[in-house]
Parts: sequence; C-alpha cells; structure tokens
Amino acid sequence: MPEHNRARQCAVDTFKAIVGDRWVIDEPAALVPYECDALFHLCERPMAVVLPADEDEVCQVLRYCAQHRIAVTPRGAGTSLSGGATPVSGSVVLGLNRLRAVTVLAAAGQALAGPGVRNVAVSEHAQPHGLFFAPDPSSQSACTIGGNVAENAGGVHCFKYGLTVNNLLGVRMVDGAGQVLDLGSAALDTPGFDFLSLLTGSEGLLGLIIQARLRLLAVPSKIRVLLGFFSTPRDTCNAVTAIIGAGIVPAGLEIMDNASLIAADSYSPGLKLRTDAGGALLCELDGQAAEIAAWTEQIQVIFRQHGLLELRQADEQHERLELWAARKNILPALLRTARDVYVADCVVPRRLLGEVLDRINQMAAEAAIEVVQSFHAGDGNLHSVLRYDSRNQGEEARAMALADRIMALALEAGGSISGEHGIGTEKLHGMCWQFGAHELEVFAQIRTLFDPHSILNPGKAIPTLHRCAELGGMHIHEGQMAHPDLPRF
Amino acid sequence: MPEHNRARQCAVDTFKAIVGDRWVIDEPAALVPYECDALFHLCERPMAVVLPADEDEVCQVLRYCAQHRIAVTPRGAGTSLSGGATPVSGSVVLGLNRLRAVTVLAAAGQALAGPGVRNVAVSEHAQPHGLFFAPDPSSQSACTIGGNVAENAGGVHCFKYGLTVNNLLGVRMVDGAGQVLDLGSAALDTPGFDFLSLLTGSEGLLGLIIQARLRLLAVPSKIRVLLGFFSTPRDTCNAVTAIIGAGIVPAGLEIMDNASLIAADSYSPGLKLRTDAGGALLCELDGQAAEIAAWTEQIQVIFRQHGLLELRQADEQHERLELWAARKNILPALLRTARDVYVADCVVPRRLLGEVLDRINQMAAEAAIEVVQSFHAGDGNLHSVLRYDSRNQGEEARAMALADRIMALALEAGGSISGEHGIGTEKLHGMCWQFGAHELEVFAQIRTLFDPHSILNPGKAIPTLHRCAELGGMHIHEGQMAHPDLPRF
Repeated sequence: MPEHNRARQCAVDTFKAIVGDRWVIDEPAALVPYECDALFHLCERPMAVVLPADEDEVCQVLRYCAQHRIAVTPRGAGTSLSGGATPVSGSVVLGLNRLRAVTVLAAAGQALAGPGVRNVAVSEHAQPHGLFFAPDPSSQSACTIGGNVAENAGGVHCFKYGLTVNNLLGVRMVDGAGQVLDLGSAALDTPGFDFLSLLTGSEGLLGLIIQARLRLLAVPSKIRVLLGFFSTPRDTCNAVTAIIGAGIVPAGLEIMDNASLIAADSYSPGLKLRTDAGGALLCELDGQAAEIAAWTEQIQVIFRQHGLLELRQADEQHERLELWAARKNILPALLRTARDVYVADCVVPRRLLGEVLDRINQMAAEAAIEVVQSFHAGDGNLHSVLRYDSRNQGEEARAMALADRIMALALEAGGSISGEHGIGTEKLHGMCWQFGAHELEVFAQIRTLFDPHSILNPGKAIPTLHRCAELGGMHIHEGQMAHPDLPRF
Repeated sequence: MPEHNRARQCAVDTFKAIVGDRWVIDEPAALVPYECDALFHLCERPMAVVLPADEDEVCQVLRYCAQHRIAVTPRGAGTSLSGGATPVSGSVVLGLNRLRAVTVLAAAGQALAGPGVRNVAVSEHAQPHGLFFAPDPSSQSACTIGGNVAENAGGVHCFKYGLTVNNLLGVRMVDGAGQVLDLGSAALDTPGFDFLSLLTGSEGLLGLIIQARLRLLAVPSKIRVLLGFFSTPRDTCNAVTAIIGAGIVPAGLEIMDNASLIAADSYSPGLKLRTDAGGALLCELDGQAAEIAAWTEQIQVIFRQHGLLELRQADEQHERLELWAARKNILPALLRTARDVYVADCVVPRRLLGEVLDRINQMAAEAAIEVVQSFHAGDGNLHSVLRYDSRNQGEEARAMALADRIMALALEAGGSISGEHGIGTEKLHGMCWQFGAHELEVFAQIRTLFDPHSILNPGKAIPTLHRCAELGGMHIHEGQMAHPDLPRF
C-alpha cells in the first residue's frame, strides 16, 4: 500500500472511530454527489465525507485534520453558486447537516439554530409565535444556516431587513485548531473586536459554525405587492431611486427587464405579463395597514411620474404569489430556453443602476452575448444572466470575458464584485482586482490566526498574491481602470 | 540632557517639521486640557499634542512613532466616558480635529466626513437635502466622527436606526505602521473579511480613521413624542416589551425611574412631571403620519393595559423638546445635587430589564448607595447612575464595588459590560470577566496585525492576560457566577 493510501486509510478509520462507521462516506460512487455544489462546472473528488453529530465530534475531526494537515471543506446543503462547498482534491468534506436543532426563544425574539437547519425551517418554527427569520436567499428551502452565516446570505427582503450579519446576534464556532469560540451575545453590542462580523461572510475560512443565535422579527400584519410596468429600463430604475428618496422602505424591490418579461411570459402565459414594457418593478410593502395605504398612494404618484404603463396590486396571499411568480420564474424560464446560463452577481451604488445597465447592454451587444436582467434593485444588487451555447466555438470564452467586464464595471462604479453569491472559487481573480496586495496580505494573516495550518476551505474566497499573479489579476486602483475603454463614473 | 529628554526633543522637533510648529503643543501648561477625557478621574501628562492637517501628515507622524516605539493616543473631542482618549504617560496625543471636511453625496444618501467633524455637523450639512445622520450620542454637539467610529457610538435613536456600525459604509484608515487601508465600499456588501466592522468599536487600537463614508437617512416627515407615567418600574419595563412585541418600531424608547423624575422635576419644575409615578416611558415615533396615528392608538391600548397613570403627547417641535427635556435634564439635575456621580453603562436582553432593575435596586440598598435609573430601554441599555460622596470614608469604594456587581449581573443575564460608552481604561477588568483567555489572546493577535509595535492607544480596551491577573479578573463561564449569591436567570 503506498504511503498516501495508508495515510488516507488511517484518516478514514479515525473519522469512523469518532463519528461512527455509518457517518463516514468513502465509497467512490457515494462520493459523487459531494464533488461539486451549485456552481457545477468545477468538480473534485473528496477523500471522504464525514458527518459529525455534535460539537465534540466536530472538534475531534478538526483536531485530527489540523494535526495531519488534511484540508477540510465545510458543507451544508451544497447550494453555493460560487463553489464555496466544492472540495479540493483529497479534502475531507465536513457535512454539518446533522446539527439541526432549533430552539425558538419567543420572548427574546431570538432562535438558536444548528448549522444544518434549513433557512426556511427557522421561520417555520418561529411562525406559531408570530415571528420570522428575515434573510431569504432563493435557495431558502434547501440552504442551511451554517452556509447562510458563512456566505452572509441576503435575499429579496434584505433591502429592508438586512443581510444575515444584520440578523445575527451570536455564533458558537470551532476554529481550524479545533478550539471553540463564542462570538457576540444576546445583547445590543459586545465589547472587544467584532469577531461576529468577521466570521460572517468568511466563507468557511475562519471556522465552522456550531450554533447561531438569530434575531427574529414580528410577522408583518399586512403585505401588499405592487407590480408596475414602465416604458424604458431607465424609467424603471429611476422609479426605484424616487421611491427610496421619498423615505419609503419597501420589503422588496425587484426589477425585470424586457427580456425577463418575455421569458417569464413564455413560461407562464397565464400571468399575462406586459411583454411590450421596457421594464417592470415589483415592490412589496409590509407593515401596518395605514402605512401601506399611505405608501401605496405615494408610489402610485411616483410610478406615474416615471411613465407607468400599467399597475397591478395584490393583497391576498395567492394573488401576491402570482405577481411574485413573474419574478421567480425567470431563471427556470431562461434555463429552459438556453443551452447555458451564467449569473453575474455584483453590486453597484443604487443611483447608478440605470447607467450601469445601459453600459452592460452595450458591452453585451459588442460581445454578441444575450444578457437578461432581473435583480434586487433596492440594494443595487445586479444579477445579469448571460445566455450562451458552449457548443459554439468561442462563445463560452466570450461570455466569461463579458462577465469579467461586468465585474470590472461594478468596481469602477464604486461597487463590489459579489453582491450575495460569494467569491468561492468563481471570483478569486476578481478579489485581485478589488483589493490591493496589502489588504490581501492582512486577510491571509487574519486567516492564520483562526486557522494556523490553513486547513479550512483552502483555495476559496481569499487568493494569495501568488495566485493573483497566476490568475493575471490586477488591482483596480482609484483613477486607474480595468478596461481603458470604459469611461469613469 | 538625559537620553530620554533628548529622544523626546528629537520627536517633538520631527513632529514640528511634519505638521508645522504651531500644530505641536508641548508646553506643560498648554498640555493640561489633554491630560484626560470625560472620564476625569484618571489623568496623565502626554509628551506632546500633534495636530496634523491631512492624511499624509498623519502617516508621517505614525511612521515616526512606529519606528521609535512612541505610544500614540488618538483624540477627537475628548468626550469619551471610559478613558478612550486619556493619554498614557509620555504618549503623543494625535488630535484629528483639523480633518473636518464634510461632503454630502445627496443622490447617494451618503456623506464623506473627516474624523474631526462633529457628529451634529454631519446632520447640519445633510439637512438642506432632507437627510440626517442617525447615530446621536448625548455628546453629539461636541463628539467627532472619528471617535464615533472608534467607539461604535449609539444614542437615543439607535433602537430603530442602529449603532454607528449600521450607518457606516466605508472607512479610510491608517494602521499602526502608517499604512493606509480602504475598508468597505459604497455598495451593499464587500467580499473579503469584514474589516470595517472589525475597526468599528476597536477604540483606536487598530488604526486611525482618516475619512468615513456615512449612510444618511431621509428626515422623517412627522415626529411624535409620547410620555407615559406608570405606577411601578416593572409596569414601565413591561410596556416596552409589549410595544416591541406588537411590531411597533419607535425611534426612541427611554425609561426614567421615580428618582429620575424627582430629580428632573426639581431641576425643571415647569415640566410638571409626575413625581408620584414609579416610572415613565418616553416613546418617540417617526415616519408617515398614517403610521404614527396607527401606532399611537396601539400604544395607548398597551399603556392602559400596564397601569398608565397619565399620558402626554407632543407633535410640535417645541412641545417635543419639552418632553425630551425631562429625560435630558436628569444627568445635570443629578450632578447638581450629588457630590459624585458614576454612570454604570451596560446592556442586558430587553425582556429581563424589569428583573435586572429589581436586582440592582436590591444590591444598591445592600451597598447603601443611591442608584437612579434613566436609560435606553429599547436596546436594554442600562445607565445606572450611582450617587455618592467621595469625602465619606469608604463610600467611593462601595460605589465602585456596586458598579462591578452591576457589570457582573449584566453578564449573567446574557448581556455585555458596556452598552455604548466603551471599555477604555474604565472597564478593562470587566473584559477579563466577559472573555476567556483564548478570546483575549486572539484579540491581541488581531491587534498585532494592524499595529505591529502596539503603539496605538496602548492600555485601553483589550487587557493582556498579565493585566487580567493584576486586575484580579476572572472569566464568568457559563454555569459559573461572578457572585455566588446572585441567583441565575
């Protein structure tokens, strides 16, 4: 038996001793589902999948891996769109799905949840108490709390209710040396450096979440959805700016462009969407009936000032879900009619949305790649959907080059390379654009504090300077552009 | 000339060369105002006060100090209540007051502000655009943005609008090696580790703020203040829980106990406060008129359910200010009638407020120290005001021991040793209670990354383990109490 096989066997035997035989997967066929996450196009075979039952087992596995320098890929439901849960070759996938206890502390307006609890299950447990957990990524029926914290998940309601970091009070975590740390508290503020925010969105590089203390909110007494159709995309974007400028705080603000409306209409003709509109704005209001009524009046005025073609309104749940279906069906609709789809997730200052959209359309025309826009407008969080056919010579390369130009454009506009999907392996090169060498070095040093042997989710989120050189990355300095042909904002 | 005097003279000469003679203060008499901040009772003579004009001068001064291992005490207006801006003996006070440019980016709903800009000046600049900056600590007419970020300042409106960290989009900072780092961005989210949150509240240990990008909010179209008087403190606390439980989001929720009402009444008899009430609750509502009207009705019902004695309401600004005066005059009123006053700032989970208040009153009686309560109830942020006379043998020691017991009680209740005043030098020993050795070590390591020679604000916020041993600190573990005579929550 070669040396590395012996080491592998020894590791697998140890994991079986810690968590029990049935909770270690090492048969090649059984490992297949763990080879990638929702990014799909990069897959790697892990050494084994280990499914610990509790904190103690997690710590034991991590201490063994630290001692033997075995890479660990933390995994929840594997819904990452940026490769956050894709193994590196030979790593141990540490699945936290069995840690799925939920305790609702109704009087405190909080819940304690294990990392393997599905996002939607928190709200299901809270619902009898009139409470809910606000972050609601699209994958909420599958994705888990550990991943939500690790990726700082957002969702359609995060303009009003914030990202995961804004709905999180504390975390119990295990670092890369197998040590337990308690971050945050049940109270307003915690002295010391803010490790809770540091951990949130760290994509598994600083520690594994063992338990999260989540903030729950009161279920709003009333919800209304308005769907406005406008002549042009620019009008649609300007309506968003006007709504927010008026001090209205919608729970959701979603923009769909004409191509989105056409796709959604062909998927669900029963919705009778206006396919002649340049754009549509879905606006969800929640709260007190009186407030919603007042805001509706204001929004109607704003919509008319921005060339409204048609307005629909829904108060009853089934009607609201129908209007939301227009937005939610776009990705399945696009997937049905395109051979390949790539979602470029980035974020720009909201007031520049109209200009950025125009520029993306121009770049898409130049690249001869179809781009469909349907996105969280309240946050300036663009989800440009690139449609292409990888069987056509050069088309995938053109699509990926366009995605890079969109990312560079977001940076020039003062935004970020990722809105809510994370960096993972997908956007490592973009990190070399967004951050300078000094920032990347400090990131790496922070990582070493929590994970001295760099065993936690290696190859993700934070590129080394060496990797940046390999990726051909360049820091986009102030006053210096990624693409000299793009005018500055 | 002794060696250390020569080194001192060389440093002062260098500072004068960097910032100009008139911006270095080293005359003993002129240094007196810089010997302490608003904590008062610990004062130290700095080597010099240096007042740089811009980022470049700040970097030059810091690089010199790093090279020569000279301690640097950053300072804004010196309003820290926890000793955050108190020099250590021989340190250089780096005053950032000259960096006070403000640029309002009205379309973006943001402002760029230098560290020396007074908190209230941001809202004054934003006001013509219908915008304001939400954090409003009591010292807002004097305290500056650099200090607000360093201390993660709160204020009476932070229940609705959050602390400074929730109203901050980015920071340009200089670390302890004189290197510039840009944290955050103009957009929703930033990939990489969350250094912006790490810096916020780090009390000057990780870097100096050179510019902050602040989030501005739309000035609410209507504001109403309700002041309810209740029979008992417990009723008053329960009314707070009921209001928040009903999904109402007041802009401010302040509780005053009977002793506060008596003090405020004697200071401003014109307010005709109910001095027979066990407690009063000041509730500010802002937003749309319709929403405020609906919430007012709900609050009236809740107040009556909790033994309301009397309700006052104010919509016009002068009337609102009058009701607020009841709250705002309490500290001056107490200072007028007590020889010495100590404010114990800590935070507890809101639902435990009533129980915690009862326990503090019992402990105060045992210690024979008068305690007056007037605090930000929405956040569970207690400000217990201890009144004593330090001329009486042993009374100060009893008061300080009581303050420690209050801090330990907050920890046992799942809260924190500091709500919004920070740790500084005042609560170093409490840090040894709230955090374990491992957490404190990681804090120290994080600090070293940003400030390799530990020159930035030494002796504040994060105690070494050695210092914890000196201070007689002990970590309050789960299941282990600071004071065995206190029952667990």
